[in-house]
Order: sequence, then C-alpha cells, then structure tokens
Amino acid sequence: MTAILVSEVGPRDGLQSIDRVMPLEAKKAWIAAEAAAGVREIEVGSFVPPSLLPQMADTAALVEFARTIPGLNVVALVPNAKGAARAVQAGVHAMSIPFSMSETHSLRNVRKDHPAMLAEIAEAACIAKDAGVHFAVGLATAFGCTIEGAVPEATVLRLAEAAVAAGAQELSLSDTTGYADPAQVKRLVRAVKAAVGGDMLTTLHLHNTRGLGLANALAGLDEGITTIDASLGGLGGCPYAPGASGNLVTEDLVLMLNSMGIETGIDLDKLLAVRGILEQALPGEPLYGFTPLAGPMLDYPERIAR
Amino acid sequence: MTAILVSEVGPRDGLQSIDRVMPLEAKKAWIAAEAAAGVREIEVGSFVPPSLLPQMADTAALVEFARTIPGLNVVALVPNAKGAARAVQAGVHAMSIPFSMSETHSLRNVRKDHPAMLAEIAEAACIAKDAGVHFAVGLATAFGCTIEGAVPEATVLRLAEAAVAAGAQELSLSDTTGYADPAQVKRLVRAVKAAVGGDMLTTLHLHNTRGLGLANALAGLDEGITTIDASLGGLGGCPYAPGASGNLVTEDLVLMLNSMGIETGIDLDKLLAVRGILEQALPGEPLYGFTPLAGPMLDYPERIAR
Repeated sequence: MTAILVSEVGPRDGLQSIDRVMPLEAKKAWIAAEAAAGVREIEVGSFVPPSLLPQMADTAALVEFARTIPGLNVVALVPNAKGAARAVQAGVHAMSIPFSMSETHSLRNVRKDHPAMLAEIAEAACIAKDAGVHFAVGLATAFGCTIEGAVPEATVLRLAEAAVAAGAQELSLSDTTGYADPAQVKRLVRAVKAAVGGDMLTTLHLHNTRGLGLANALAGLDEGITTIDASLGGLGGCPYAPGASGNLVTEDLVLMLNSMGIETGIDLDKLLAVRGILEQALPGEPLYGFTPLAGPMLDYPERIAR
Repeated sequence: MTAILVSEVGPRDGLQSIDRVMPLEAKKAWIAAEAAAGVREIEVGSFVPPSLLPQMADTAALVEFARTIPGLNVVALVPNAKGAARAVQAGVHAMSIPFSMSETHSLRNVRKDHPAMLAEIAEAACIAKDAGVHFAVGLATAFGCTIEGAVPEATVLRLAEAAVAAGAQELSLSDTTGYADPAQVKRLVRAVKAAVGGDMLTTLHLHNTRGLGLANALAGLDEGITTIDASLGGLGGCPYAPGASGNLVTEDLVLMLNSMGIETGIDLDKLLAVRGILEQALPGEPLYGFTPLAGPMLDYPERIAR
C-alpha cells in the first residue's frame, strides 16, 4: 500500500487569504483537532511582518503550541532570511520559502528578482542548516502566472537547479494560480525530477481554481509525488467567484486517497468534524468541498479496508 | 494527439433531475448552440412515459430537430423495448438503455430484476438492430449503489457479458451514484474490457457528487476510455447539497481535456456562452462548474495549440 502525506496548509495559506484574523485559541483548536484526526504535517503560519499580514502575527505562539503535539511535523512559511531566523527561534521542524518562477510575480509579490531571491534562499538555507531545521523551496507559479501567462518549463528547470544549489533540501511545485492541467503536471514533475534528482521533488501544492485540483493530484501520484498540500474547507477561496475555491480541499483529497486504498493515516469522519471549528470561529466564511456535503460512500469502510 | 468524444447528456440527465420543464424552444436553442460550439454527440432526451417524466415529453420533437444539425450524433435514452420502438420511430442515431448492476436499485427504479432487464435489453436490441440504430447498454450503479453499497466487480463482469450476449453493441460504465474513485475506475475498466473485449467498453458516465469526477475521467483515459458523458453546468445537481453537483460539468471537462492537448473539437468560449441559455430558461436553477467562474488560464490558447 502506498503512503501519501497530506500536508495541511489551511492555517497558513487559507487564513492569509481572508481578511479576518482567526483568534489564536481557535487556530490551536483547529491544529489540535486535525492532528487528532491523523494529519501528520501542518503549516501553521507564516513568518512575514505582522504589519503586512496581521492574520499571521501569532505564528510563533502556534509553532510553540504545535510542537507539543506528539508526532506532528510543524512547518512554517518564511518569505526571506529574516523570517527563517524567526522560524528557527520559534522552533519549527521545517520551513518552506516560496520562490516564484515568474519573475514578474516575484517582483510584484516580494519586490525581488530571481538573483535576489536566490541570494535570500541561500541565506535562509544557511540559517536553517545551522539550526538543523529542514529547508524546502516552493517553486511558485510553476504552472503559469496570472501576469506573465505561460512559464517556460526551461525556466522552472533552471531555477529548480539553482534553488538546490542555493541549499534547498526539498522542492515543491506550486500551482499558485490554479493553472495546472494533469498532462502538464506529469511533464513538469518528470522533468524536474530528472533535473534535480527524483528524491528532491516530493510535494505538490495545488489549487482548485478551475476544478482540476484532484485530477492534478492524481497525475502527480502517477509520477511519484508523495506529499500533497491541501486546505481544510478549501479555506481562502476567492470571494469574487463563489465555488471557485483556491486551495485543494483537504476533505475531498483525503476521501479520494483513502478510497483508493492509499494510506494517509487520516480518519475522514474526524477530519470532517474539524470544519465545525472553522464555522464557529469564522462565521459566514465560505467553505468548499463536495465530501462534506455528500458524505462518504456507503461502502467507504470496505474501500479503506482493501 | 488523442481524440476524446465529450457526450453532452444535460438535456436528458440534467433536465430529468429537476422539477421544472424546460420549454421545447429553449431545449432546441441549447442543443443547437452546443453543436455550434463543436459538441458532436448529445443525448437529447429519454423515451420514458410522459406521465412519469413530463420533462422528457418532447423527446421525439427534439430528435427530429437535432437530426437536422449536420454532423451531430443524436442519442436518446430508452428504459425498455417500448421506448426503443419510439426512439426508432423518432429517428435517433443511437440509443442507450440503463441496466442497473445493483438489482435492488433496478427493482426500485424500473421494477425489474436482472433476468427481466436482460430480456428487455434483448428485445430492445432487436428493435434497434432491425432499424440499423446503434444500441448501447449503460451499466448503471457500476461503482456502487446508495441502497446496496458495494457492487461486486464479479457481478458487473457477469452482467456486462450478459448485456453483450443480449445484443449490446457498446457498453458504458455509469457512476450513477458518484461512488467511483480513480483506482476503482482503472480496475473496473480494465476488468470489463478484458471480459467483453476492449472495443466494447468505450464510455464513462461520471457524476461529481464527491468532487472526484475529473480525477475519475483522467483514470478512465489512462485505461483507453474514448467517450466521456457530461452535463452543461452540471445541471441536475442535488438541491439539498449545494455544490454537490450531480453530473460531471461539461465546461470543466472540456477545459481539462483541451488544456491537456486532447482533441475534443469543442470551442470552450462558445461552450461557456451556452450557459446563458440555461440561465434564461431556468432562472435560479443552480449551475455548477469552476471554469465558468474562473475562466480559462491566460495561456489557454498556447496550451490548446500544443
């Protein structure tokens, strides 16, 4: 039986995408409940300046809390070396730095071109390495950019190699924009693995903007991807396009993987119950997903026992 | 480049699932507009007694109209031999009869057990054959049943062989209940093809109840499926579970296939415009799909030109 790590990124990617700030206690309850449902890795927040993203101001406190949960891999996003130092100080197990393959997107988002980002990555990598913290680079907009359009595969390969040279211990391919299609996922995963070594690319970060999220996940599994990011309730979906959720929905991903007989270690019923925490802490916030509405199939217990 | 036939079933499966009756002229406009967008096969209705499904009472008139559209394959559903005779009389190119793999579902739905349905299929097949009309059998609830739960693979294989013996010229596997997962799709398609011959099983009819529709379609493509049913706007979704659409959404399927460089012959922009006909004819009726909200990717023209 294959084992796939479902990495919950909702407390970071979901919460940073909505205006409201979730109270620290609710975040803790969310993280604890997901871990109790069997989720083994959670990106609990982001070490960005609180002035930019007040939603993430309590990330250090969340890291401290999440570290008390046995068996949970505690991850945080860091935008730069300064964030990496804060992440180390807070005690993360792993950190991830986004590196946008579209230079225009990078300039707009963090006001850094590719060489400047690579210098930042190298500095952050040193900080992580010195502290013995796992260091991943997320290749953002790898499947296309809302400003530039297509991002050439050659660009992704060149920058993937540069990220590894700068100290990345692991890469993920991020479909930041919801542009990926399954054929592209297969091509790009294969090409990046060929360029930097199969073990270096483990993770897909997918969005469900055009409904292709699970199909893209499936395509990634076919190419040996072993970690898939997802967000409970697809939190952080675009409010201007109801139903056009942003992140891949954890509940639907877990239903798919578990039904297929792929080991996630996650109890779907317990996971579905965690939505109640979001509904209570963020009343009226749109939550997505099909499984929460339809429930598992009648023969779900038989499927997962296969 | 692979070519995949996207078969529009909305005028049948979508409209039979909602209470309102779409006026004949709107149905005609819908069918004409989809054909103009490049859709090459449409299931225009069902030859069930109008007393049971008044939504389908004008199917003969629709067949007559659709037959005037050059290059369009005009399909109708028939529940039994009587319906087959009406379909032949109306002038369909092809007919499809549903055969529920769950005997409980069959008894509830059409009050016939498996032997009685096989007799009906044999009679309908003769009627179709005599008229030179293509005759397909849809293996309904093939991936599981909301009453029985799991439907054993051995049952599906046995009944698939029996349907072929009774005169089916083509089989489709129908996930009537939205139970399928991608691993199951691969297993079952492979097994049925092995049992009845690869060319006999061409079609998947998928629902998106649990969000796995496109992932299941992708799994089917991997196993040599060449026709996929879908419904514009996912029409006919369950009103009690908003977002939990019933049918696979044609728009999302076409976006996925076209982006992958799979030839469907369908112009996505024109297809998206057809939704306007549904919105006007069925005001307030929930329509589904992600692509209609997000639009195609900025580099979509480059993707389809690959």
